[in-house]
Amino acid sequence: MITLLGTGLLGSAFARAFLRKGEAVRVWNRTIARARPLARDGAIVVEGDVAEAVHGAERVHLVLADDLAVDSVLAAAAPGFAPGVLVFDHSTTSPRGAAARTAHWRARDVVYVHAPVFMGPQSALEHNGMILVSGDREVVARVTPLLAPMTGKVVDVGPRVERAAAFKLLGNLILLSFGAAFADMLALARAMDIAPADVRTLLDHFDPGPSFVRRFKRITEARYDQPTWDLAMARKDAGLMQAEADRGGFELRVLPGLAALMDEMIARGLGEADWTVIAKDLVEGT
Amino acid sequence: MITLLGTGLLGSAFARAFLRKGEAVRVWNRTIARARPLARDGAIVVEGDVAEAVHGAERVHLVLADDLAVDSVLAAAAPGFAPGVLVFDHSTTSPRGAAARTAHWRARDVVYVHAPVFMGPQSALEHNGMILVSGDREVVARVTPLLAPMTGKVVDVGPRVERAAAFKLLGNLILLSFGAAFADMLALARAMDIAPADVRTLLDHFDPGPSFVRRFKRITEARYDQPTWDLAMARKDAGLMQAEADRGGFELRVLPGLAALMDEMIARGLGEADWTVIAKDLVEGT
Repeated sequence: MITLLGTGLLGSAFARAFLRKGEAVRVWNRTIARARPLARDGAIVVEGDVAEAVHGAERVHLVLADDLAVDSVLAAAAPGFAPGVLVFDHSTTSPRGAAARTAHWRARDVVYVHAPVFMGPQSALEHNGMILVSGDREVVARVTPLLAPMTGKVVDVGPRVERAAAFKLLGNLILLSFGAAFADMLALARAMDIAPADVRTLLDHFDPGPSFVRRFKRITEARYDQPTWDLAMARKDAGLMQAEADRGGFELRVLPGLAALMDEMIARGLGEADWTVIAKDLVEGT
Repeated sequence: MITLLGTGLLGSAFARAFLRKGEAVRVWNRTIARARPLARDGAIVVEGDVAEAVHGAERVHLVLADDLAVDSVLAAAAPGFAPGVLVFDHSTTSPRGAAARTAHWRARDVVYVHAPVFMGPQSALEHNGMILVSGDREVVARVTPLLAPMTGKVVDVGPRVERAAAFKLLGNLILLSFGAAFADMLALARAMDIAPADVRTLLDHFDPGPSFVRRFKRITEARYDQPTWDLAMARKDAGLMQAEADRGGFELRVLPGLAALMDEMIARGLGEADWTVIAKDLVEGT
């Protein structure tokens, strides 16, 4: 018996994926109406309290909103935990919260494993995507075969228990950064009287996406004395973009913070260095 | 005879590429010492004024810093322009500047074509990369065969003469946005005690780059009622990232502006919409 707590977009998809594999699945959600549709897929919808939902389950999977929700649901569920229960938490939480929970529940003989995921609902249904784990080597070895069928990839990010949470935040930051970039692209385009569909035309010809990792490597290589685009020129271009946005009355969200960083670096005499010097302090750790 | 004005990183690479193809090339630079190394490659380095450098040339290529440099160099060069000279400007300039110059020089029987490029010095040497053109249909048709050998791709972005300049700014904004994202990723990683090299490990497993264009399309499709990541959850994650950065004493440059935008949208009641709703006003044009 698997119990799944939290039937939002991702939790519901995980429940359906378990059911399709023939697992017996109990589901519970704080707002129970959101769990009920899963009954049609074969889930047992527990209308009572969460301790009842976890009663006798060998595995409990959590997909909740935040640290606070995880802590309060686990506290309420605890009276129902079977001896030796495995608790997998797929929520995106703080690294400190994940570490504290692991220690808290270990002291109570519950194996709590933070295993955040990079998956949308569709990839959860299709068992592709990525699950992160970290922490105690024996625990990771034990749970990996249980997590592997949920996804195409279980990535072990090392012995520090909070690392899975940290890497999850880094991954989500990339996605948010893309969103921020898109918002600025659209604002600049509109300011210059270019329609969103036309920006897509640019991307059909100039897709920088596949070079993302190579460019990230370049920024960490700190080769500032071999510029392909020097900081002063990049800053000049940023100024042109800001001027166009201002003229059109559109606000840029990403560029001002970056321009301020570039100005700081130019003030430190780095204008002729490659523009990747913006990350110098972060890469060199000064 | 081709004259190249501006022997910075990209200009020097273009000069060498022309020379390798057997073209006669004259080069000039405001700081002449930066042009002299091209003599070893077979270029004629003009030590005199810029009018002398363009004298008798059929084609003049400019790779200069900004609008001001282009305007002043062209004004100084004008007395030397041969009848029917073609002037190609590969500088990244303002759209308005490009449009004004096209009109200004047309009135003086000079065909000025703004043709900014997406190429580093290496791709200029190897004739791969991308040149943008826009404007008068006859002019674009006439110059495309001349520009094509410089690169693998000449992209015509339409009849409005300032469009090439505008698309060049959009493309550079993507690159700057990547840089901003990298800076935030490194700052967040450092705040969470993760080394830059370990962030690269994450990217080995989770490379969102190839999905860049698909994600951009999604943001322009405005399917806010089919969330895969709802705005409230994305905002919660942004808060976790900011808290980690603050705790570690690292400044994030991109995220604060994005978080402010998310807060505005949540205040408008859009918290349960897909998080791509951040660009709603820009996509829908309200």
